[in-house]
Parts: sequence; C-alpha cells; structure tokens
Amino acid sequence: MNMQSYSHTLLTELGNIVGPSWVISDEDLSRWEQDWNQRARGKAFAVVLPASTDELASVVKFCAQAGMPIVPQGGNTGLVLGATPDDSGGQVIVSTSRMKRILEIDVENMTASVQAGCVLQELQEAVQNAGLLFPLSLGAQGSCTIGGNLATNAGGTQVIRYGNMRELCLGVECVLANGEIWNGMRALRKDNTGYNLTQLLIGSEGTLGIITAATLKLFPLPSVQHTAWAALSDLDKALDLLQLAHRHLGPSLTGFEVMGREAVRLVVKHMPSLPVPFAPACEDAWHAMIDCSAYGSASGSGAVFEHFLEQAVEKEYINDVVVATNEQQRAQLWHIRESIPMAQAQEGLNIKHDISVPVSSIPKFVETAHDAIARAVPGARFVTFGHLGDGNLHYNVQAPEGEDAISFRHTFEKQVNQIVYQAIQQFDGSFSAEHGIGSLKAEQLLKTKSDTEVAIMRSIKDALDPLGILNPGKVILPG
Amino acid sequence: MNMQSYSHTLLTELGNIVGPSWVISDEDLSRWEQDWNQRARGKAFAVVLPASTDELASVVKFCAQAGMPIVPQGGNTGLVLGATPDDSGGQVIVSTSRMKRILEIDVENMTASVQAGCVLQELQEAVQNAGLLFPLSLGAQGSCTIGGNLATNAGGTQVIRYGNMRELCLGVECVLANGEIWNGMRALRKDNTGYNLTQLLIGSEGTLGIITAATLKLFPLPSVQHTAWAALSDLDKALDLLQLAHRHLGPSLTGFEVMGREAVRLVVKHMPSLPVPFAPACEDAWHAMIDCSAYGSASGSGAVFEHFLEQAVEKEYINDVVVATNEQQRAQLWHIRESIPMAQAQEGLNIKHDISVPVSSIPKFVETAHDAIARAVPGARFVTFGHLGDGNLHYNVQAPEGEDAISFRHTFEKQVNQIVYQAIQQFDGSFSAEHGIGSLKAEQLLKTKSDTEVAIMRSIKDALDPLGILNPGKVILPG
Repeated sequence: MNMQSYSHTLLTELGNIVGPSWVISDEDLSRWEQDWNQRARGKAFAVVLPASTDELASVVKFCAQAGMPIVPQGGNTGLVLGATPDDSGGQVIVSTSRMKRILEIDVENMTASVQAGCVLQELQEAVQNAGLLFPLSLGAQGSCTIGGNLATNAGGTQVIRYGNMRELCLGVECVLANGEIWNGMRALRKDNTGYNLTQLLIGSEGTLGIITAATLKLFPLPSVQHTAWAALSDLDKALDLLQLAHRHLGPSLTGFEVMGREAVRLVVKHMPSLPVPFAPACEDAWHAMIDCSAYGSASGSGAVFEHFLEQAVEKEYINDVVVATNEQQRAQLWHIRESIPMAQAQEGLNIKHDISVPVSSIPKFVETAHDAIARAVPGARFVTFGHLGDGNLHYNVQAPEGEDAISFRHTFEKQVNQIVYQAIQQFDGSFSAEHGIGSLKAEQLLKTKSDTEVAIMRSIKDALDPLGILNPGKVILPG
Repeated sequence: MNMQSYSHTLLTELGNIVGPSWVISDEDLSRWEQDWNQRARGKAFAVVLPASTDELASVVKFCAQAGMPIVPQGGNTGLVLGATPDDSGGQVIVSTSRMKRILEIDVENMTASVQAGCVLQELQEAVQNAGLLFPLSLGAQGSCTIGGNLATNAGGTQVIRYGNMRELCLGVECVLANGEIWNGMRALRKDNTGYNLTQLLIGSEGTLGIITAATLKLFPLPSVQHTAWAALSDLDKALDLLQLAHRHLGPSLTGFEVMGREAVRLVVKHMPSLPVPFAPACEDAWHAMIDCSAYGSASGSGAVFEHFLEQAVEKEYINDVVVATNEQQRAQLWHIRESIPMAQAQEGLNIKHDISVPVSSIPKFVETAHDAIARAVPGARFVTFGHLGDGNLHYNVQAPEGEDAISFRHTFEKQVNQIVYQAIQQFDGSFSAEHGIGSLKAEQLLKTKSDTEVAIMRSIKDALDPLGILNPGKVILPG
C-alpha cells in the first residue's frame, strides 16, 4: 500500500469512529494548527472531533495501534504551544469542542459536572444562573475550555482567594494512552482512597491522558463586590497594601492586581476612550486594583472596604484612590486592566515572561531584573502587570519607544530571557507561573529542574504513556 | 555470616548513619509498633530516628541496598495501620520525630516551611504568634506531625473553608525510594512547570517517597469567631441550614458539624460534667455546630451571624439554638464535639466508618444504611457525627445497649461493613474520606476501584519504587 492510500485508510477508519464529517484533513486547518499568539503553525495529519468520551477513547485506541501521535486541543488559547502539532504532518489533533455539555449542577453539593469542551464562560454563566459561583476567571474565558483549563492548571485573577484550577477540581474523567477510560468523576470534598490521579493529570498538558470531563467545586455567589483602583509610588508600598488588605478583608479579598506605569500608559495610548484613573499624566510608578467580594448587605461590607482604604491612605501606602460605586464602574475598571495585553500587542511584539516568586520577593525581583535589563538594553520599556497577591507577574519587555518591535525581539530575546531566568533562580521563583510548558518552554524545563525531578517526570510519563503517543514534544522531552 | 551477626551488622551500619543511640532495637518498641487505635501490633527490625533529610536519605539508600523495607512514621496517630510494620521483624520504622524544626515563617508571603516531624499544634501556635493562621485542625493535633498530615492528606473540621492538607501545601521535600532527595519546596502560589509531584506524594502514605519537609499556605488570622449549637429534627433540615449558612456567611463559614442523638447521648453519659446544650433530654434527632470566622469588628460579623440564625429559626430549619458569647464558651462547645470519639470508646469498641458522599446525598445515605443495619442488627446504635459541610460522616455502629461490645463487633463487623460499602457505592461515595488506606483498607481498595485505576496506581508505584521498599502492604497491593 503506498503512502497516500495508507493515509486514506487511516482517515476512513477515523471517520468510521466519529463520522466522516468530523475528520477534517482536506481544508484549511489553520484555526487548529496555528496558536493563539501566532507564534508557530504546525501541520496536522487531520483534526478529529469526537462527540463523546467513548468516541474519543476509540480514536485514541486506534491512534495507539497505528502509532500516530495525538495532540489534544480545547479552545486553542494556550500561550506555550501546548496544543500545536509539530510540522511533520503526522500528528492528529483531537479537539474536544463537540463535547461541551454541562452534565449537572448540584446546588446542594455545590458542584458542577461538565464535559471537557465546555467553554469557561458558558459554565460561569450557567452556574451563576443557578445562584452559585464558579470563580475561575481569565482573559480567554470566552474561548478557552474547561478541559484546557484543567490540562494547564489555569490561574487568572481570583487565585488569591479561590486557588488555581487544581484547587477547583474534585475529579476528572480521562482517556488514557491505551484508549481506556478512567472515571474519576467523584463529587466528594474528602476522598483519601489511593493516589490522586486527578491531581497528577491536572497541569500535565495532555501528556499523561486526555481529560474528557470533570467535577468542579462551586462557591456561594457574593451578593456585592467592591473594587478600588489606587496609585502607588513603589512595589514595597504595594506589598504593604496587600498585607493590610489581607488583614482587613480576610477571604473577601478576591483580587489584587498591579500594573506598572508603562502598562497603564499603553492602554491610555491605544484605547484613548477608556477612562483610565489618574490618566493622562500617569505619574505614579504603579497602579493597583483591589477586589472585594462580600455576602450580606452592601453597606456593611462597603464600610469595611472604605475603612481599609482610609487606613491605606493614612499610612501613606497609596497616593490616590478611586472606588467603583456601581457594577458598571466596576466592570469598566476591570476592562481597563484586561485591556493591557491588547494594548501591548498594538504597540508591537514584546519579550514575554510569566513569572512567579514568593510575594515577599516581588519588589527585589523586579528591581534586580529591571536594573540588569536596563543596563543590557538601554531604553527598553517594562510592561509589567499581574497578580501581586499570588506573586505572579507578567513581566514583558518592550522595544524602546519608536524602535522596531520585531527586530528588537529578534536581537534581544535571548539576552533578556537569560537575565529574567537568572533573577527567577535567585529568588526561588518559577519561569512559568500560569502558562505551562508546552513545547515552547520544554527545553527551559530541562535546564531548570534537577536531574532527580526530570527523572521522576520521565518515569511517570513512561508509566502512563509507554508508546509516547500523547502530545509528544510537550512538557517533558524524552532523555 | 549467620543471621544474628548479619542483623548486628545492619544495625551497626544504620548506627553509623544516624548515631548508635538513634537506632533502637533492643528495648520496648511498642510506641512505634502499636497503632493508636490498638488495632494491631507489628514487629519491627528496628526504629531509626534520623536528625536530618541527609541522614534520612542515607538510611533509605542503605535499606534499598540491603533490600530492607521501610515504614515511615510521624506521630503514629493514623487510624488505618498506615504506619504500622508487619509482624515479620524485617521492616525498619523510620521516624521523623527528630526532624521537627519550623524552618521559616514568611509573613509577607503567608507561608511556613517546616520539617516533617513538626507537631501540628506547634506549627499552629507558632503561626498564630506571627499573626497568621494555619487552619488544619483535627483531634490528634497535639501528637500528629506535618509529615503524617501530608502523607495521609489530613482533613478535619475546617475543610469546608480551607480544604484538606492537599490544598494547604505548596511544595514538599522528599526522599525517594533510591535515597535521592527531591527538593520541591517552592513557596509559590502559581507554578506550572511540569507534573505536580507534590500533589502525587500527598496522600500516598509513604509508599512513593518519604516527605521530609514542606512549604505550607498560611491565612489571615480571623479577628473574631462565632459559634452556634443548634438542635434539628432531621438531616434534610441540616442540609437546608447548611445552604442558608453558605448564602449568608460565604467564606466566613469555617465549620459545619453534625452529631446524631446517640453521639450526643454518649457524651452526656460518659462526661456528665460537660454542659451539653439541650441535655439531658437529647430529644432532637440531630445537633449541628456552626462556626463563623470573621475579620474586622465583632459587632458587624456578630450581627450577620445573628441574622442568619434568626432566618434559620423563622424557616423552622432548627428547633433551638445556643450561641457562644465568648471564647471560653466557644471552646467549651468545641470540646463537647471533640469528646465524642472518647465517649464512644468508653462505651466500648464499635464498628467504624469514615465515609463521604455528595453533601446532597447525605440524608438518603444515612436513611438507607440505617434501615438496612437496623433490619440486620436489631437494637444497634448509630453513633454518627462529622463534617456535614464536606459530606463526610464518621458513621459508627455500636452494640445494642448493655450488650458486649467486643463480641458484637466480632459477630457483626463484616455484615455491617457490607451494608455500608453498598450504600457508599449507591451514592457514589468514598469508603475512606479522611483516614486513608494503610494496610487496613488495602483489600477494600482493590475491591472498589476499577481495574484501570488499580493498574495506573500500580504503574506509578512501580515507576517510583521499583524495588517495593517503601511501606509495602499499604495503599496499593502488588498484582
């Protein structure tokens, strides 16, 4: 049998499993082959869209027998090429996008069971309609899927209170590398019966199994939310403000974001219609957004929030502050914060890092990295923003004003990366706080982790995927 | 070399690693060989007490070379024979009790780094002195160790708000089966760089590695706590009350316990000096304890708590309620709750279960199991209490009034277990919510889990401990 007819046979067999119209190979595959950031485009053998866990399991079983590697894909919004095929044309993209049902919302148990392809925002809305909260909240929520959120252990803006996706999941259903289905969909808050395979699968980016459904924790829906935007002189004060917020607000503190001056300036520049507080001067070095979610009367929690801010002013932690007085203003403030990624994109490609260090080390980390980069790349602009409450900053370096972004990145990316990685190491941090490893950072993982840790990861990969069929080239490269 | 001199050589070698006085073999070993519940006593080759991670690693390396299995042990307060050696006389107990230092409390990062042998209560107190909270809270806290808490994924009374030990840990240091040390002590709230080995090790009961230290999450210290004790007619009303508490209190709800009438009666009987609310009649079928932790002024949160209770009375969820008006009264109410295990022990051995089901299924689970047991064992008494907020009940069956406890347990344990396990299965529950598997429930695990899940667990065990040196006979038995 020649190559072409062998391909044809494979496609026919896959079509027999999911239906011929759900195996796509002879049209434009760019929406699956191209990553969100337009960083790379692979070439897939085909895109297969199963309608159910059983179909997906049969696809995996077939691919395992045929020796054909699989790239699992949810909303394809990842930032580290974790769902992008290589350019061999020999990998099958298995998309969960047809498996998008919300299976159950159990109000009394405060849990939701959903299929992997359910879009995050759809789950958020359905849960809210049931009078509860699913707190995972991130920029891509209109497109990303629950399966992808689990595979990458998604974080976002409310981790300070609710944790990462890892903490929000009670159990998963998963298709293993041999096509067997493991059903770990337990809606239990306590279950100590053996190794926690759910926790092992979360964050493994589809390299140990394909998550097909999950049971997630829900929370009481806050009755009111208060949001403030403050201007600050430096990150030490931001840290003081964070401590004060923890002490005054306890678990009502559901968000604590910081934005460097340059990040705010880019929003002012590219989205001039947005009412950025303290613009257009933007003289303060840092801005902070504080979100407070409360239960019971708005006046009661409002008074607590006001008192916290008064204390912050009195202690001179903040130079100025505005408070949203209604839901519309609140949404507006968040919209400004969430416009930073788009504003920097409009300014031109930059050198991106998604770092974390202990919260207490944030000011020194930023100072260390800034100083070294400023010396190495005079005029570089620092677009720094992120989740101070979790010690997580998006630490991006932009070309000097007026310089060409692409050639800047080409020239300086390696050098800037080295400086940032060194500072991360100095402060016991992580080179990928939220975004994961994918193929983009797989080499960096090998450079950073101890031989012992790499060996354990490889032994787990070999134990669960001996043929190396699941998302090869991602997370942990073979030895 | 004969057996005796070979033993002597092994002891000498171990003594060379940790110092001869920290290898104990020729005196009474019962405090290490006998489990807390006096359920079984094993016979160890020796007890070894390393002073450091390096010493512990050398002990493991030596044992691996000598082919001598290791039983890791913390405070020896487990309830499933997870830290008890077999009776071969060939296993070495490795106790972490000398490795008990608190390494660091980072107030700004809200983390603590501790060695595995640190007693839970000592950590709680040190953290409180630093103005923060480590929320894990359970009966054995005066004796159990952080290492044991992690190895068993301890739960306790505040899981409803703070999660299990799993959710409280950011990273561990661990000695692997080959004696290598893996340092995963990252004080980061976001870190997506590869498989989460910390989460795999937590709850693995020393069968995949020996946890030697950990970095734990801390929380703002509540400024005030409110506690109520309510009398209820049935579990459906308890569930209504729980929902109401979630809606009114949000994350301030830090405890929601229920106690069946018989559990309360046993406290009244055996601890007559304790001021049990609504005693001596105990006519209500169920009692509930609700704990609320707040920040800011006591009057503000007190009013919210009172309003919640008023609503509960108005909706007739509760028949009666008392509220602790000071810290002493609050401690007293908790003391009553925590006296139940002792009271039932004084009444005589009973048949114990540590079950969980979805919170929404609790009333039906209890009804189903009660009916079947009452038919099978007329007069059996149900000592039911636990953490309703997590769907976790300690579901214990006591001999009929006046009957001999030991012969009752001997006669009926198997039959009662079968009924309970069947009900657990019917309601998608867990046969070990908090206590783990150890050797006591290892057979039950094999009966309950799918072949697929058992195969994954075995492949992980083989990958991380190919010689089967770490706590053999616990959690996952070989095929």
